Amino acid sequence: MAVSEDLAAELERVLPDGRVVRDPDVIASYAHDEAEWAPYGKPAAVVRPRETAEVREVVAHCARRGVPVVPRGAGTGLSGGANAIDGCVMLSFEAMNEIVRIDPDERIAVVQPGVVNDDLRRACAEHGLWYPPDPASAPWSTIGGNVATNAGGLCCVKYGVTRDYVLGLEAVVGRGDVVRLGRRTAKGVVGYDLTGLMVGSEGTLGVITEITVRLRGARAAERTVVGYFDTLVAAGEAVSAVTAAGVVPSALELIDRHCLRAVDEWRHMGLADEGNVLLLGRSDAPGQAGEEEADAILRCFESAGATWSARSTDPEEAEALFAARRLAYPAVERLGPVLTEDVCVPRMLVPEMLGRIERIAAEHDILIANVAHAGDGNLHPLMIVDPDDDAARERAQVAFERIVDEAIGIGGTVTGEHGVGLLKRRGMAEEVGPVVLGMHQAIKQALDPAGIFNPGKVFA
Amino acid sequence: MAVSEDLAAELERVLPDGRVVRDPDVIASYAHDEAEWAPYGKPAAVVRPRETAEVREVVAHCARRGVPVVPRGAGTGLSGGANAIDGCVMLSFEAMNEIVRIDPDERIAVVQPGVVNDDLRRACAEHGLWYPPDPASAPWSTIGGNVATNAGGLCCVKYGVTRDYVLGLEAVVGRGDVVRLGRRTAKGVVGYDLTGLMVGSEGTLGVITEITVRLRGARAAERTVVGYFDTLVAAGEAVSAVTAAGVVPSALELIDRHCLRAVDEWRHMGLADEGNVLLLGRSDAPGQAGEEEADAILRCFESAGATWSARSTDPEEAEALFAARRLAYPAVERLGPVLTEDVCVPRMLVPEMLGRIERIAAEHDILIANVAHAGDGNLHPLMIVDPDDDAARERAQVAFERIVDEAIGIGGTVTGEHGVGLLKRRGMAEEVGPVVLGMHQAIKQALDPAGIFNPGKVFA
Repeated sequence: MAVSEDLAAELERVLPDGRVVRDPDVIASYAHDEAEWAPYGKPAAVVRPRETAEVREVVAHCARRGVPVVPRGAGTGLSGGANAIDGCVMLSFEAMNEIVRIDPDERIAVVQPGVVNDDLRRACAEHGLWYPPDPASAPWSTIGGNVATNAGGLCCVKYGVTRDYVLGLEAVVGRGDVVRLGRRTAKGVVGYDLTGLMVGSEGTLGVITEITVRLRGARAAERTVVGYFDTLVAAGEAVSAVTAAGVVPSALELIDRHCLRAVDEWRHMGLADEGNVLLLGRSDAPGQAGEEEADAILRCFESAGATWSARSTDPEEAEALFAARRLAYPAVERLGPVLTEDVCVPRMLVPEMLGRIERIAAEHDILIANVAHAGDGNLHPLMIVDPDDDAARERAQVAFERIVDEAIGIGGTVTGEHGVGLLKRRGMAEEVGPVVLGMHQAIKQALDPAGIFNPGKVFA
Repeated sequence: MAVSEDLAAELERVLPDGRVVRDPDVIASYAHDEAEWAPYGKPAAVVRPRETAEVREVVAHCARRGVPVVPRGAGTGLSGGANAIDGCVMLSFEAMNEIVRIDPDERIAVVQPGVVNDDLRRACAEHGLWYPPDPASAPWSTIGGNVATNAGGLCCVKYGVTRDYVLGLEAVVGRGDVVRLGRRTAKGVVGYDLTGLMVGSEGTLGVITEITVRLRGARAAERTVVGYFDTLVAAGEAVSAVTAAGVVPSALELIDRHCLRAVDEWRHMGLADEGNVLLLGRSDAPGQAGEEEADAILRCFESAGATWSARSTDPEEAEALFAARRLAYPAVERLGPVLTEDVCVPRMLVPEMLGRIERIAAEHDILIANVAHAGDGNLHPLMIVDPDDDAARERAQVAFERIVDEAIGIGGTVTGEHGVGLLKRRGMAEEVGPVVLGMHQAIKQALDPAGIFNPGKVFA
């Protein structure tokens, strides 16, 4: 492809050696994220920058040439947001992975976008500090990707999502301008919240090159409550009971029997032998308050009809259960291509929505596994389909959109934490309506006059 | 003024009776907020809508006529954001003051913009819930105004600002479209964060007509620590010591001798007899953790050289001290026109910035009183000037801009919580720089094509 050759050669001329990837097999490995169902194109070039000035060169060059720029973290996204556009430049940040600074007094950290989430968390822990956002992908996903998608995680139910921790950003915007947005002070209201606007914009408004996050102090050890339930709806009712009791757990996770079995088959943990649906609750309130919260969670599990429930007395066992929770998604992926939902509904409607998902699975003859950040109403129905069964793929796609529509219908949202990417564009348009979609398009045009930043993602 | 007459008459034709104010004295009372130093014009009309459809009518009419719309809450703003523009329509929300719904299970409240902050807090308390943002103006200011300015308050040091609690909005945007932004679920990342963009935009992107906020559970009783210091800088060092000790107080307020005396003169509390600078620290951690935090705060006060310090054992006395803190601003206002700063600096630089403010006061021969949300680095130097002394007014304005520039110079921001309005437009341009200012202008043009929403506020 002459155009690609030209573009890669042009980029090589404006960048230091070793930044532009030329190996076609390596280029192909950057073509999509983990949303296997989303379409993807062929990148013209892959660039691995080492500093902001190089990102600026790439953006300026692409703006002059009208070439799309697709930023990419670790490629763990589940919506196709980092999928290649034909002829695009993929900007991959694995070489910009420096923790620039941790300031324990101001409780902030400054990082490059390629820093892996768990690496930042470990580095903070050495200072007695804590960076809360903990997507299940934390061992692999990067802060840059987390910021681009406004990633959630297990502790969000109590501690909020990535946006709640981003104080400031450096970004390359427009036709190649490097800007600093936000602040490093505890408070600040100067002008529009451009930092918050960039967070979750999935690369459509610019390329993030540095991130300033706020940190919390290390927290008290968590207490874990384990409950097994016969049905998804019963487990959902336990979740609603916890909410109605006024308890804010530090995690409240649901794993259904399909996911338990998938983890068992992979890691031989015997989880599915204990019951059908597993709920894991946690409290990190200090001292007696934590004891009371854990007891209250246990009572909610019992009153909702848990077949077995107990407070875990063994921290290693509790950690293993949460590790199993984090493995649910990769374990299910081993069974075949997974179409992942991310609907979020009002907390009290978790049992209602779980019941609807079961009915939709039955009506469309699709295997839907469920894993959920149930405490904040964020459900992840996972559709598992034989890749060679075209009819099943079509049924799964119909079921996917039905779940989206029913979640919207009961006051929920299409995406709690994964982002819109490509898979949820129809759902987003449905959810926000034409006027608000028009506001998105107007902002996109205003901030991306060259139309190069991840075009076609989030909305058309 | 024929144009005003016409406009008011036109609005009367499209609105129900009693919405358009015609009395010139009443109209004049809506011409400015509490930023007495900021310029203001003469409104063509004042409208007090009772429902969203009326707001839509006003906006649509103004869009057709090219007339500026200035939304206004209680008029307690301190930056001139709600000041009238010549020939504008003032939209005042005192009649849209309904608490639409409090949902204890989902922990959300839905309110109209004219609801007074303290009224919402009281209504939430009846359900065992808490709406944290607590600007010192909470007895008078409205949620709509709080949202428009992203108001802070005393508990922000631990619990964040207004934006952290706004989940969703209804707004009238563009040329009169009613939109719903955001969500009512715990999480949600669909599209750009337009809710966060509207919060703090000071009426320049549309008119907010309904607000959905998230709530917390009622918290444990607070413990109060009181400390007096000889100098501002010593008190600032106590603040830094608290920060460095890793304690996150639920409030950490500073009141200097000028403010103490002003409160004493008004309310005869004898505060200034006890010492020069008062620090009030609080902890709301439950149980033993709260005891330990309060003790740690006390040790920080002592190590920084407090002339007197103690944990308050009398809740009524503690409440009276915080009431005095909230009265500091109106007490100082009784002495003459006040030019109010709102700089926010990195927490560890609070003593440095307080020292600079004292030097600037001396060098420009200006009386500067200080009250501060010291725990988050948010300082409110208050310049008090004889209204008839033109030379002193000029010196105060020079000192104002110097404080702004020095705060920016040490990594701070022009405005921690009051907003830019008119008073801090130069400082904002200085802080964000021309490219980021251009991003603001591009967004403003994209979302306000008629150019009617509070034009000229925040930036030119």
